[in-house]
Amino acid sequence: MEQMTRIQQNTLRRIVEAAIELMSERGFHRVSVQEVGKKAGICEKTVFRYFATKKSLLDEIIRYRAYASELKREFENGRTWNLEHDLKLAARLYFQETKAKRNAFRAYLSALDSVDTNGEDFLRDPRELHAFLCDYMTAMQEKGKVRAGDVRLMVRAFVNTLHGYMLMYCLNDDGKSWGDKVASMKLTIDLFIQGFSQTGNSVTA
Amino acid sequence: MEQMTRIQQNTLRRIVEAAIELMSERGFHRVSVQEVGKKAGICEKTVFRYFATKKSLLDEIIRYRAYASELKREFENGRTWNLEHDLKLAARLYFQETKAKRNAFRAYLSALDSVDTNGEDFLRDPRELHAFLCDYMTAMQEKGKVRAGDVRLMVRAFVNTLHGYMLMYCLNDDGKSWGDKVASMKLTIDLFIQGFSQTGNSVTA
Repeated sequence: MEQMTRIQQNTLRRIVEAAIELMSERGFHRVSVQEVGKKAGICEKTVFRYFATKKSLLDEIIRYRAYASELKREFENGRTWNLEHDLKLAARLYFQETKAKRNAFRAYLSALDSVDTNGEDFLRDPRELHAFLCDYMTAMQEKGKVRAGDVRLMVRAFVNTLHGYMLMYCLNDDGKSWGDKVASMKLTIDLFIQGFSQTGNSVTA
Repeated sequence: MEQMTRIQQNTLRRIVEAAIELMSERGFHRVSVQEVGKKAGICEKTVFRYFATKKSLLDEIIRYRAYASELKREFENGRTWNLEHDLKLAARLYFQETKAKRNAFRAYLSALDSVDTNGEDFLRDPRELHAFLCDYMTAMQEKGKVRAGDVRLMVRAFVNTLHGYMLMYCLNDDGKSWGDKVASMKLTIDLFIQGFSQTGNSVTA
């Protein structure tokens, strides 16, 4: 579907958004392609032309949730080469992007048995996030603003911790009780900043 | 069902384990009570006597996954009042317990729309874990082995980080690629130990 017209792209988007809305509420397996069409106001036959199977619709939901490119752009615009400022910025942008697409994530959490969480589509964004933060941290190490150690591992620890909090957020009904987690997340990010800065080097990666 | 005989308890356990096996593979909504009975080798009528609804079966799966009491017992037996040793022990026990019950967690991740993740059953174990680690950290603070600060918040950050990694593990197909996460989890726990110890007190909770 690389060469879609704007009208086609618009139709695809309407179908995907209707599917996300229904599936995040009721679960992937309890929503039919017919219902998605009805919700989107698009006839069943057209929906089937875009998505021959529900699995292909799920793949599109994963693509719809892409966040890394936007995050990278905003991070590179906003960073000041101060470790504390920049890691907080990265975390804030990450939650901003993934929270906005929370329902897409819930839709495919409800389809766990149909999702390959080791698949290329699923891993693309985490990998892109890891890659550009590695570039950043390597540059910071060269500037003498980040302690010595395995940058790839340090970034993996940071990014995995963000993913964990995001999962807790997406899992939570309506994001209730998320407020309770924000303070603990901030403290965790502070520990990373302290641990990665040039002065806090008693932990070796 | 407080006053069950041993035979009844055994029957209940067989039903729950059969349900977990089927639901963790195929998803909650794609498994019928009939299939659970067949898998468990128990007639449908009996299954319905124990579980009038699929939702009640899901509630029992949540109870089946309880880990905090066992974790507390083993932590209190094994702790040495050395912060590094004890936080690593707590993390190890947490993953040991929750990984063993990974399929139960996957079963109810697949039923997100039917699970109240703010419900009492869902929150009991995280709360118990938080409570006994708070007792431990308060004692450590009194011994002068943990820096000053809000113990409840410090423990929440630690526990939420463990939950996040556990979610990533449970989400992952067959736990593949989990090996990649272990090193980053260890580094993260090291950051907590460093940040919470008496010497590393530049972060204030």
